[in-house]
Amino acid sequence: MEDLLIRLELSALQDRYVAALDNDRIEEWPAMFTEDCLYEIVSKENEDQGLPAPVIHCDNARMLRDRVLALRNANIYEKPQYRHCLSGMEWTQQAAGSFSMRTSYVVVNTSRDGTSSIYQAGCYLDHVVRTPPGLRFRSKRCIYDTLRVQTVLAFPI
Amino acid sequence: MEDLLIRLELSALQDRYVAALDNDRIEEWPAMFTEDCLYEIVSKENEDQGLPAPVIHCDNARMLRDRVLALRNANIYEKPQYRHCLSGMEWTQQAAGSFSMRTSYVVVNTSRDGTSSIYQAGCYLDHVVRTPPGLRFRSKRCIYDTLRVQTVLAFPI
Amino acid sequence: MEDLLIRLELSALQDRYVAALDNDRIEEWPAMFTEDCLYEIVSKENEDQGLPAPVIHCDNARMLRDRVLALRNANIYEKPQYRHCLSGMEWTQQAAGSFSMRTSYVVVNTSRDGTSSIYQAGCYLDHVVRTPPGLRFRSKRCIYDTLRVQTVLAFPI
Repeated sequence: MEDLLIRLELSALQDRYVAALDNDRIEEWPAMFTEDCLYEIVSKENEDQGLPAPVIHCDNARMLRDRVLALRNANIYEKPQYRHCLSGMEWTQQAAGSFSMRTSYVVVNTSRDGTSSIYQAGCYLDHVVRTPPGLRFRSKRCIYDTLRVQTVLAFPI
Repeated sequence: MEDLLIRLELSALQDRYVAALDNDRIEEWPAMFTEDCLYEIVSKENEDQGLPAPVIHCDNARMLRDRVLALRNANIYEKPQYRHCLSGMEWTQQAAGSFSMRTSYVVVNTSRDGTSSIYQAGCYLDHVVRTPPGLRFRSKRCIYDTLRVQTVLAFPI
Repeated sequence: MEDLLIRLELSALQDRYVAALDNDRIEEWPAMFTEDCLYEIVSKENEDQGLPAPVIHCDNARMLRDRVLALRNANIYEKPQYRHCLSGMEWTQQAAGSFSMRTSYVVVNTSRDGTSSIYQAGCYLDHVVRTPPGLRFRSKRCIYDTLRVQTVLAFPI
């Protein structure tokens, strides 16, 4: 039963993560990571060939906070309206309070003209740790299947 | 742990809700609401501007039952074949046995010619109460992102 | 509370199932079934008319293992890159350790040219049993809504 409750806790974290991105609350995004975190977006093609070359690479939480400021202040991006669908969550315990987790995602975006379409499919490879204030991502790597990725990729997935 | 179990209970209610709509059992739909319920479908654009102007507005369960009868008897609508994808569920307790809940949805529809496509993306804003027979929606507001909404909107989301 | 934990267990099994298919680990697929299992893919149209005529019909686990070998060795199929979205899970207990379960699915596929699109929507009708090594599918029937099903249907859903 303990395993089932850990599963539920991890899945609540993942839900909170996508809810912040999907409901225009990106300020909450950096706080879900540890300070010494890794956040990456990489194509599956590169990942499979061992050539990471990430589209986004942030290796601490300050970089995430900077990105939020940039996204809020710069008007160069059309703000997306994402809805993340999640499935196939799997996890293993690595050490006490340390978990690796994999979750498939499909992101649907509604563009300014009101058309909803699949923006990106892929999977999250996460490393989650238990900290005094709760579960946090030590690393989150977004491996996307979709090749034609629009320029709004600067927005977190 | 209590919080995790409430989460699971709320998410079971939401699953039951979409299962009734997706599997041609709309007769079960009104019974998931309290008698003095609110059910609305509103565009995100209007919601954000504080101009509700809902596409559907029902303020008691009788109106929901009437709608089910109309949908079953009238043949003016092409019956949709929806599949709701849900994610990003968040909840807070408002009072004893009273919860507010937010969940993103993406509805895929398969039309009569057998083509499956995204019909609508958006989020549910729900108020759920514990009643003697179980959890019920006191209000469910469907805020949709997608602008081009087809005329079958008379069918509940 | 026992019911909520069974729900969580069943949903973990379903997640494991789609994770194996979505992450190129089809070797794990047959082991999630009992030896005397049934696996079928049937169109909703046929199912509703009582004319099963399944696209795939396997009535024991050896047939599933053979299919995995065929898929790995034959190069006639373009290997799909699926992401299954699941929702609306409902279950009932049939006998001690025996459960029927229904879950909606939407499968998004990314083709070789990197385009992600809805491949198939439908629902799983499952019969799950508790065995010494854990929960297993005694039968899984995939009832699909989408009519235009591509030739890669030989790959499990």
